[in-house]
Amino acid sequence: MNKTSSKHSASVDASVPVSLPSKHLLGIEGMSPLLIRALLDRGDMFASNPQSDISAALKGKTIVNLFYENSTRTRVSFELAAKRLGGSVLNIAVAGSSVKKGETLLDTATTLNAMHPDILVVRHNCAGAAKLLSQHVDAAVINAGDGRHEHPTQALLDALTIRRRIGRIEGLRIAICGDIANSRVARSNIHLLGTLGAEMRLVCPSTLLPAAVDQMGVSVFTDLETGIRDADIVMMLRLQTERMAGTETPSQREYFNFFGLDKAKLERSAPDALIMHPGPMNRGVEIDSTTADDVEKSLIRTQVEMGVAARMACLEALALGLDNAS
Amino acid sequence: MNKTSSKHSASVDASVPVSLPSKHLLGIEGMSPLLIRALLDRGDMFASNPQSDISAALKGKTIVNLFYENSTRTRVSFELAAKRLGGSVLNIAVAGSSVKKGETLLDTATTLNAMHPDILVVRHNCAGAAKLLSQHVDAAVINAGDGRHEHPTQALLDALTIRRRIGRIEGLRIAICGDIANSRVARSNIHLLGTLGAEMRLVCPSTLLPAAVDQMGVSVFTDLETGIRDADIVMMLRLQTERMAGTETPSQREYFNFFGLDKAKLERSAPDALIMHPGPMNRGVEIDSTTADDVEKSLIRTQVEMGVAARMACLEALALGLDNAS
Amino acid sequence: MNKTSSKHSASVDASVPVSLPSKHLLGIEGMSPLLIRALLDRGDMFASNPQSDISAALKGKTIVNLFYENSTRTRVSFELAAKRLGGSVLNIAVAGSSVKKGETLLDTATTLNAMHPDILVVRHNCAGAAKLLSQHVDAAVINAGDGRHEHPTQALLDALTIRRRIGRIEGLRIAICGDIANSRVARSNIHLLGTLGAEMRLVCPSTLLPAAVDQMGVSVFTDLETGIRDADIVMMLRLQTERMAGTETPSQREYFNFFGLDKAKLERSAPDALIMHPGPMNRGVEIDSTTADDVEKSLIRTQVEMGVAARMACLEALALGLDNAS
Repeated sequence: MNKTSSKHSASVDASVPVSLPSKHLLGIEGMSPLLIRALLDRGDMFASNPQSDISAALKGKTIVNLFYENSTRTRVSFELAAKRLGGSVLNIAVAGSSVKKGETLLDTATTLNAMHPDILVVRHNCAGAAKLLSQHVDAAVINAGDGRHEHPTQALLDALTIRRRIGRIEGLRIAICGDIANSRVARSNIHLLGTLGAEMRLVCPSTLLPAAVDQMGVSVFTDLETGIRDADIVMMLRLQTERMAGTETPSQREYFNFFGLDKAKLERSAPDALIMHPGPMNRGVEIDSTTADDVEKSLIRTQVEMGVAARMACLEALALGLDNAS
Repeated sequence: MNKTSSKHSASVDASVPVSLPSKHLLGIEGMSPLLIRALLDRGDMFASNPQSDISAALKGKTIVNLFYENSTRTRVSFELAAKRLGGSVLNIAVAGSSVKKGETLLDTATTLNAMHPDILVVRHNCAGAAKLLSQHVDAAVINAGDGRHEHPTQALLDALTIRRRIGRIEGLRIAICGDIANSRVARSNIHLLGTLGAEMRLVCPSTLLPAAVDQMGVSVFTDLETGIRDADIVMMLRLQTERMAGTETPSQREYFNFFGLDKAKLERSAPDALIMHPGPMNRGVEIDSTTADDVEKSLIRTQVEMGVAARMACLEALALGLDNAS
Repeated sequence: MNKTSSKHSASVDASVPVSLPSKHLLGIEGMSPLLIRALLDRGDMFASNPQSDISAALKGKTIVNLFYENSTRTRVSFELAAKRLGGSVLNIAVAGSSVKKGETLLDTATTLNAMHPDILVVRHNCAGAAKLLSQHVDAAVINAGDGRHEHPTQALLDALTIRRRIGRIEGLRIAICGDIANSRVARSNIHLLGTLGAEMRLVCPSTLLPAAVDQMGVSVFTDLETGIRDADIVMMLRLQTERMAGTETPSQREYFNFFGLDKAKLERSAPDALIMHPGPMNRGVEIDSTTADDVEKSLIRTQVEMGVAARMACLEALALGLDNAS
């Protein structure tokens, strides 16, 4: 399998860290194809060299994981990525902390900033939280998910996963299916995969369509089997009932009947498709276990694996920016 | 006091790490006396050399503490043990994490596994959880307590504590007292201490006896003073009301009257016995403070101290297995 | 601006670590001016040399953060300080831990102690908790806040903040305002700043005055504008409603009207005063945002910054004491 498409291999050199045009990494929207490819190439290099001490980009640097929402996978992934680059990591779960004493997001962030961390990895339930912080702190900020807005490192790891399996993004038919309105993962992936030339489809009930969908350059389907027909990639999303008002919540059984991916629907519509899911999965709600655990078709574990590599590329790029600025 | 019995010192060499016959450490049941003695010898060596940089067995390795039940002592003990061997430690308390989003134990573990940790230390409220995980991950798994099943490193540290104080296990009269039915500590200790030749007694109300007690090679007593008579070791267990259905819960005062260890009962029945408890203690329920804090008789603090040494021996043995396999 | 007053620069040498007369750091009460100045000088040196590897005083040492109350800023500050000195840090948030299983403070501490940490940083909601622990453990204990009693490192960082801005403490008029009865920060600052020769004023409603205020060597004011008149420093305290019984809790709006610091009151009474707050702030309750965020007058962010430096000085001094004793 050809892991590197000739298109981008001509333009970047994976042996050097990526230079970002901005100090922070807040979203995929607006990123150039060249920059995205450079980060993917660098992540690919980290993924192919898991054991070697290939970079000490974060040596002497402090990375703070500031998480206002629970997360095992993303927090651990950032922590491992930072430690593999030689960084020192502090974890702050704000749910059980000063937020109870009435301190605002900005006070917490500027307080942490006064202790001079180098990089602040932020997850928050409000869209725009990472950007707001980036305007008030000296540290470089990485958005690790802000409400329904963006989750840029997830999109990068998804693209890295696809590229390592198929060798390219351009020209692929990629269907994102499920709770799109509530999904920052969907939003970041629409920007990233579209920018790299994939044909993007959204598949969901009309109640879960995001606003302004007609400006996204995507096709919209409200029938799963039609939407995933002949797709190269079927990316299922978690039904995020915790972000829904009570009355909108669909019956999980009904949801599975219409929009849950199972073996039968997949074989009828897209027998060659590869399956992705950002996790954590609701088995039996948006995807059945046979499909999720299919060793040939499912890329779900590879996604997690690529998470560390993609985040290493991002952290390294931010650290390089800090060093060049100082 | 002779700290090393001639019996085992002839058979193993504490100056080299232990080779385990299996990749994982899931329980004491089925372990050979030779293997147990080798781990104890190695733990003894670590306990006697607390400050020196005696081993960097975990250098470059990542150890994940995955705890589905609250624990200060066990988690900290594993964390210290791993760090003293040069390892990098990540802590995950799943109670406040993805479990709330509906992710299963297996999904969480395989997700973590995809990030390539070397050793997964797992505590879970279900018996068999550690074994289940070990069948689905690449990491080596240590059972840090699974429901009412086993807690192998606790039994190893208990044996190490006894051996360093008395010099041997074989031939000792050891009474395990209290809430045996709910205790993984009791189960692991019955296997380990019995295998090394101790005379094992169980002392508890009949409602707290485990099933299949007649196949355990133990004597059973339902009267505390009779059960601990002339014992060398009296090991008290925590009354685990959190694992009992409401109707079974005994009155704590009544429980203490009949099965709580106090100075008077101890002096009448077993004036020379040494006292152990795996902690955390319910003072005034299964043991009184005079007995728990007796500087001559109580080994409780030594147990905690030996916890780090015993876990160093186990972690080192697993790391060696990983290195030899790769 | 002269950062070092001639008074203290004659007596100590900031290029060497401070020797403490006792093994623990439990409070400011009873500390000599010479010792306080030595810690401030050393903290000043750390603050002026943030990046260099200026000390590895904690190399090979284990520092345990044992927090019975939630805290982002103090825990992170100690963790960063310890790591910058080369130490290994373990965090224990006891709220979600063995305390639920009925273990006492002392059992938890002696359990941890049996694992041989070098320094135990303790926060607890009971006055005297740190002292109690220090009598039962081998580790050196730092009080990171015990009930309404003391918070010595906060007072040291406050004094360091003032000294770096004004160049001295002696002779300054310092008004501590607000919920003094419930504030360990106030108590430690009254001792420290008074010992160094500041003129101390307390400003609060009579219901929030501490007991024995007439033995503190302070002036008492129950009117904010009178109390802060011509002050050099106005130190606002958080209204700690979580430590008040329900009936005492003032209306927050009424409290702000009488005792909240805003631009108008400040300009009328103490236009040249610098503003401090230990955080986290209740904006609109004890202080308005205009005053809190005033880039000229507010020292609040500098306080956080000095927290790491002051704690480095304290941790280093304790580590030196441990090394000299062994």
